[in-house]
Amino acid sequence: MTSEYDSQIAVRQTAPDTYAATLGEGWVVGGAVNGGYLLSVLGNAIRTRLSEEGDRWPHPFAVSAFYVSASAPGEAEVRTTVKRVGGSLSTVAAEIYQGDQLRMTALATFGDLGVIPDDVATVAEEPAMAPPEQCFGRDDAPAEMPPLFSRFDMRFPPDQVGWALGQPSDRPEIGAWFRLPDREPDPLSLLLVADALPPVTLAMGRFGWAPTLELSVHVREVPAPGWLKVRHVSRNMAGGMFEEDCEIWDSRGRLVAQARQLARQPRPGASVV
Amino acid sequence: MTSEYDSQIAVRQTAPDTYAATLGEGWVVGGAVNGGYLLSVLGNAIRTRLSEEGDRWPHPFAVSAFYVSASAPGEAEVRTTVKRVGGSLSTVAAEIYQGDQLRMTALATFGDLGVIPDDVATVAEEPAMAPPEQCFGRDDAPAEMPPLFSRFDMRFPPDQVGWALGQPSDRPEIGAWFRLPDREPDPLSLLLVADALPPVTLAMGRFGWAPTLELSVHVREVPAPGWLKVRHVSRNMAGGMFEEDCEIWDSRGRLVAQARQLARQPRPGASVV
Repeated sequence: MTSEYDSQIAVRQTAPDTYAATLGEGWVVGGAVNGGYLLSVLGNAIRTRLSEEGDRWPHPFAVSAFYVSASAPGEAEVRTTVKRVGGSLSTVAAEIYQGDQLRMTALATFGDLGVIPDDVATVAEEPAMAPPEQCFGRDDAPAEMPPLFSRFDMRFPPDQVGWALGQPSDRPEIGAWFRLPDREPDPLSLLLVADALPPVTLAMGRFGWAPTLELSVHVREVPAPGWLKVRHVSRNMAGGMFEEDCEIWDSRGRLVAQARQLARQPRPGASVV
Repeated sequence: MTSEYDSQIAVRQTAPDTYAATLGEGWVVGGAVNGGYLLSVLGNAIRTRLSEEGDRWPHPFAVSAFYVSASAPGEAEVRTTVKRVGGSLSTVAAEIYQGDQLRMTALATFGDLGVIPDDVATVAEEPAMAPPEQCFGRDDAPAEMPPLFSRFDMRFPPDQVGWALGQPSDRPEIGAWFRLPDREPDPLSLLLVADALPPVTLAMGRFGWAPTLELSVHVREVPAPGWLKVRHVSRNMAGGMFEEDCEIWDSRGRLVAQARQLARQPRPGASVV
């Protein structure tokens, strides 16, 4: 059976290099369709397009997306342009349109994570987190959550939910366990995971949507089945914006993806640009 | 008088949306033209293109570049496509070609750093570094340096030059002071600074070029005149690649830019793809 995620990121070719998609109602947060879900739809179109060239580039290695206007649920078109087909890596530009409105423009390099060398000299340390069964999930939320949070299982450690209890943190950090209810993680779905958590500004008690201007994701390894551990940290909050770095660790304790975004700090009624 | 950097990143319009540039011999390192210099040429073309639309977007806010083949000194063409002109931010796609070879494809959002709010809640701490006059520069180098390193003044703290003395570090970190000899920093030149230092792999005693696959730069503030403090750190070396995070601090102690790249680990004779 097809998982919810796979059915919702499905694309259908409508012309050479062009794919139709339907952005699901369930992925809305903060008045727009979630950026990680959009990136998954776009990544799926790129993967589909590259499969016409051969089977050597099934996985995203690096994706950078610029969000130029807020997407709404409904019909969308993904237009792709292959920039270079290489021996191990291929690079594609892709854009999501709704009608004549550009929602998102992106570049991506795809390759095969199954054939990379197996050296690991990572110095980052896996964050400590209470086990999922001791964490708080959406069933524990005191108020109604945005539709997005019904799409996956996200569990917040007890020492990181002060923001929900009127005791916000003074550190721009937020961490959670993540899994899709009906599907194991793979490289493509990490594009969703990279922008699934609430922004670090929420941990600091600043409620509201933090519109992403740019999001870059590096997928470094095929994730193992099971829970993912996700941690977002900001180092630079200034000038009305903040950068947010995301690390995704798999159940073997491997750092399988890193992402960085530049976002606007939340303010009521903020628009993307 | 025009600085060397400004004269070397000059672009000349040859057709609508198209600009000619000459990539200087002096910016070569590891067998190819330096990525930060290329990004400056591309950024200059984008700035020039956007100036046709008005004066509201003089500075790069976020730039993401994918390096698809190694550039050589000589003639190059920058092709731009305006994706969206917005009230405060505008987004442009740009590519560098040499002949029919695509060297680099990029997306960028430009705006005006002069009109952003002045809030600063940065939690990153400025790295400690011995003052420039106590550091080692190119005049102290025991061997001939690549041409690139004659383009600017870069000073390595005494506690960070073990790699040059046969005593490499076990940490993927490298830091240095940086300035152009004949020009103060501005937002555009930070695109150069973001990819000017040797890779962190050098600090670990692994000599050789580390070809960049993707480089994202966020420019967050107009830098003050004077020396810049630059620090590169990697957290994730695995699968033949590594990510490198760059922070650029100005003489007032403000974190003015952050960059992240995904690069291949050095191996003799490595190609970009």
